[in-house]
Amino acid sequence: MSAPAISVIERALAGFKPEDHGLPADFILTKLTAMKGCGCKVPREVLLELLKTFDDGSMVIDNDAGVGIGLDSCVVPLRHKGLNLVQTTDFFYPLVDDPYLMGRITAANVLSDLYAMGVSECDNMLMLLGVAVELDGVARDVIIGQFMQGFKDNADMAGTKVRGGQTVRCPWLLLGGVASSVAADDEIIRVDQAKPGDVLVLTKPIGGQVAVNSYEWLKKKTGRVEELGLDECKILKAFQQVTVQMCRLNRNAAKLLHKYQAHASTDVTGFGMLGHADNLARAQKEQVQFVIDHLPIIEYMDEIATKMPNGNGFNLFTGTSAETSGGLLVAMSLENAAEYIREIEMLDGFPAWIIGRVEATSGNRGAVISPDLQIHSVASSIHQQLN
Amino acid sequence: MSAPAISVIERALAGFKPEDHGLPADFILTKLTAMKGCGCKVPREVLLELLKTFDDGSMVIDNDAGVGIGLDSCVVPLRHKGLNLVQTTDFFYPLVDDPYLMGRITAANVLSDLYAMGVSECDNMLMLLGVAVELDGVARDVIIGQFMQGFKDNADMAGTKVRGGQTVRCPWLLLGGVASSVAADDEIIRVDQAKPGDVLVLTKPIGGQVAVNSYEWLKKKTGRVEELGLDECKILKAFQQVTVQMCRLNRNAAKLLHKYQAHASTDVTGFGMLGHADNLARAQKEQVQFVIDHLPIIEYMDEIATKMPNGNGFNLFTGTSAETSGGLLVAMSLENAAEYIREIEMLDGFPAWIIGRVEATSGNRGAVISPDLQIHSVASSIHQQLN
Repeated sequence: MSAPAISVIERALAGFKPEDHGLPADFILTKLTAMKGCGCKVPREVLLELLKTFDDGSMVIDNDAGVGIGLDSCVVPLRHKGLNLVQTTDFFYPLVDDPYLMGRITAANVLSDLYAMGVSECDNMLMLLGVAVELDGVARDVIIGQFMQGFKDNADMAGTKVRGGQTVRCPWLLLGGVASSVAADDEIIRVDQAKPGDVLVLTKPIGGQVAVNSYEWLKKKTGRVEELGLDECKILKAFQQVTVQMCRLNRNAAKLLHKYQAHASTDVTGFGMLGHADNLARAQKEQVQFVIDHLPIIEYMDEIATKMPNGNGFNLFTGTSAETSGGLLVAMSLENAAEYIREIEMLDGFPAWIIGRVEATSGNRGAVISPDLQIHSVASSIHQQLN
Repeated sequence: MSAPAISVIERALAGFKPEDHGLPADFILTKLTAMKGCGCKVPREVLLELLKTFDDGSMVIDNDAGVGIGLDSCVVPLRHKGLNLVQTTDFFYPLVDDPYLMGRITAANVLSDLYAMGVSECDNMLMLLGVAVELDGVARDVIIGQFMQGFKDNADMAGTKVRGGQTVRCPWLLLGGVASSVAADDEIIRVDQAKPGDVLVLTKPIGGQVAVNSYEWLKKKTGRVEELGLDECKILKAFQQVTVQMCRLNRNAAKLLHKYQAHASTDVTGFGMLGHADNLARAQKEQVQFVIDHLPIIEYMDEIATKMPNGNGFNLFTGTSAETSGGLLVAMSLENAAEYIREIEMLDGFPAWIIGRVEATSGNRGAVISPDLQIHSVASSIHQQLN
């Protein structure tokens, strides 16, 4: 594994200039779809209803962690003793305009479901690609070529290879992948062991949906920025921050789950922090409730959400704002959490936070936002590093 | 493994009546896309050009058999000694109107890439689904529910399970899957051992693209049927025949590759019989040419192709007409081929044929159609069985 030649931070800060790649100056990748990133998923309740088709239980409905969430990933005990096939797939639409960075985000997002289970070695990746029919020769070659390079570079970062895939023509540009690992039993974290007294750790701040959408308002000049009286410079910085964050692998966070004896873990994507916390809480052996009392939010995104109708734009403060390639959400002991956070910050160069606690409950399992919720605005470390 | 409650043959013969499922009588599944089945693939030359991005060889470009064709399937030697991860993925668009049968075809088509390598045990399947945005509540639930049932029924037939997947909204209905097997070295056929003197066996007749398209002309009343003076009844029969054939797994054909010591094999899909034969020939260790001197074609499809411009509609007689979930194309000794064909016919109830031979060449490796090509019209055995 070696670091790719292209720096995500430099690339995100530079922005994507279509004309530098032989494309028309007004070329906008995200126009090739009407949906963005993990916001494109079929609603969870619709999906669960449809999956009742498989009422003989032969389709095990499991996600991140084999915890009954919907179709997302799985652990299959193999004929070969002590080994399991751990697999996950994801596909979605572009949400940033740089096709290279979209490739990195796509790979990071699909790998994240392995990492959520403590599986840090991926044995193979497949690439899934729907090529927008309206993409002509040059644009197609540039976009697809750069996307592939980004996808491959993050596969390299993950110590794995891309050895197959499928490409079809499609009205929208569709991006995705499959990540598979053949893992020994002890390489997989048991994710249903959360105990009262544990704390909850989050490894990336939330607010991705706000950042991506507000940047879209800016770029497409929708008038929304002026209407809400927003600061263009702050929007741009937040967008750059979230872009870099989405490209970042949760691999170190996954490896450290073993070292610090995580009791439960998942990754935060389309259902938002609270949605995934809720799924995870319901899957625990002990009758517990996850209480969120602290929300780390990408700088300025809380201000935007406050200025929007109901003062809760994109449901940011109620915890269900969608993330793409979000962080890991982990339950572990308080002592271990402190060390876990310290070591992640050292390895990745980005902070992590204790955002809540695990409590015994006599009622229903689930996750809730505490009435005493504290908001913490997370300044961009990529901009700080440059200063 | 038990046979599904729903018979593919009965279902194909009955036709799909939308009103029986609470849908408008004029509901047509294949209208939810502008492309059909394996005809939707990005052209091979475009794909190969794009894949040059990976010029460090880290993306191993291998298909059916690790033979340098394009992105389609792969064999990954694992950290666990003597074991390999064999994986394949495919997704495409509906090409028949019955969503249940589309589910079976989709599963059969993705499994076929494992079978092409002699891997008959699939350890896990993932389902990939793009739900057409225009599908409303009832239609969505019926279509997706039936599709899932068909996909699951063929997974059952294959002795495997569907344990994950991904669902997004998409302008077109997009159907696909991933099939994975963790296989010991000796479960995988070496597919580069064809020798001069070998014969080539094909396990399903060609002409699928002609059958699907001519049925489309009929159904959509495009005027083409009258213009070419075609027989509606014969078109319908051919469509039913190809529907059943596309649902049929190549699993027995795969198991017998071992018993009869196949030297090379692939499956016939989007590039057509000759396209896949050509890819396979180029991948052989010995400097050989595959010569096709016999084309088994679904009854009446040769007549349609003859009546079309150039007398070669869909390039049927030049061998590149696209198939979806086509048969295996196998190189083996003449003696073994006779036994292989006999045993497949016994197990599957459908015929297979010797369609060509392997010759030494001093020129380029590849596959060619013999000047003495014989056309053989394959009558529908599903209709015969009913008489």
